Amino acid sequence: MNFCSACGAEVTLRIPPGDDRERHVCVACDFIHYVNPRVIVGCLPVHEDRVLLCRRAIEPRRGYWTLPAGFMENGETTEQGAARETWEEAAARVDDMSLYRVFDLPHISQVYLFYRCRLIDGEYGVGPESLESALFREDEIPWDELAFTVVKRTLEAWFRDRETDHFPVDVSAIHFHRPRG
Amino acid sequence: MNFCSACGAEVTLRIPPGDDRERHVCVACDFIHYVNPRVIVGCLPVHEDRVLLCRRAIEPRRGYWTLPAGFMENGETTEQGAARETWEEAAARVDDMSLYRVFDLPHISQVYLFYRCRLIDGEYGVGPESLESALFREDEIPWDELAFTVVKRTLEAWFRDRETDHFPVDVSAIHFHRPRG
Repeated sequence: MNFCSACGAEVTLRIPPGDDRERHVCVACDFIHYVNPRVIVGCLPVHEDRVLLCRRAIEPRRGYWTLPAGFMENGETTEQGAARETWEEAAARVDDMSLYRVFDLPHISQVYLFYRCRLIDGEYGVGPESLESALFREDEIPWDELAFTVVKRTLEAWFRDRETDHFPVDVSAIHFHRPRG
Repeated sequence: MNFCSACGAEVTLRIPPGDDRERHVCVACDFIHYVNPRVIVGCLPVHEDRVLLCRRAIEPRRGYWTLPAGFMENGETTEQGAARETWEEAAARVDDMSLYRVFDLPHISQVYLFYRCRLIDGEYGVGPESLESALFREDEIPWDELAFTVVKRTLEAWFRDRETDHFPVDVSAIHFHRPRG
């Protein structure tokens, strides 16, 4: 961030009065530009004993499989956002949504929320950001070709919880450590 | 948003290629400025049969009582953010944190996450954004002087769930409708 989005003047890094960390502050109009974590919402759509995955047509991780998910938009709920992403990426409608997994990724300031849900009529297609979509049984999941750690962890948890038909909500953090040197 | 924070040129509202909604796009460098919902993280700190509340020293809702909560910062987890806010607003340390309530407020593009937690040693103080802090039993809660609907709902749920000692996670949306005319 170099310029104030309100007045166009330069911004500088400064600790505002009463604050305890540096913010981008406009040198002309004193506007404080806060930068906050972003929310990514997604679904784990289930049809009978199978889960819907999409193969990504875009970077990052093009060609790898993911649960439908994406950035939450202003003006929607987390549940609406997760359903919207599932429609956009897999042309699939879902219902019976229940929050299932929350992941904190502090190194990239993201929070993931995954909802378990029912794939309506077992129907799906391929959205513009996907190369293909498909339903997978546990032993068919392409474990070595999953796009993201959060997807792998969510799928592992769901197939484990399915054994007891008990799906408690869980929050966990994923910390990436950059290799030294 | 009037100017590009990257290059300082003007921005215009336009639907970028492959997108389906208007974004602020720079007329000079084509940078797309996404605006996303913000996360507010908070705690419900418990000591014996009492809950810690703070009376707000700042707007909005100055003078009203709230659970300690505030905007999540970059680089922290939701749990760390909730604990940080509790320290900042009530000089209180907490542990045994469990996600308890998620609220979607789509009209203001906010997502609240409240954690149940234990108030360590029952000790607390008053942070710079609070007028006072205090522990309340259920019949002592200032129900008519609570700052926010999310605080009221979280407290109501907790005192209800306490009867069974079972505190399931719940997600709900709060929609505000502006009065007509």
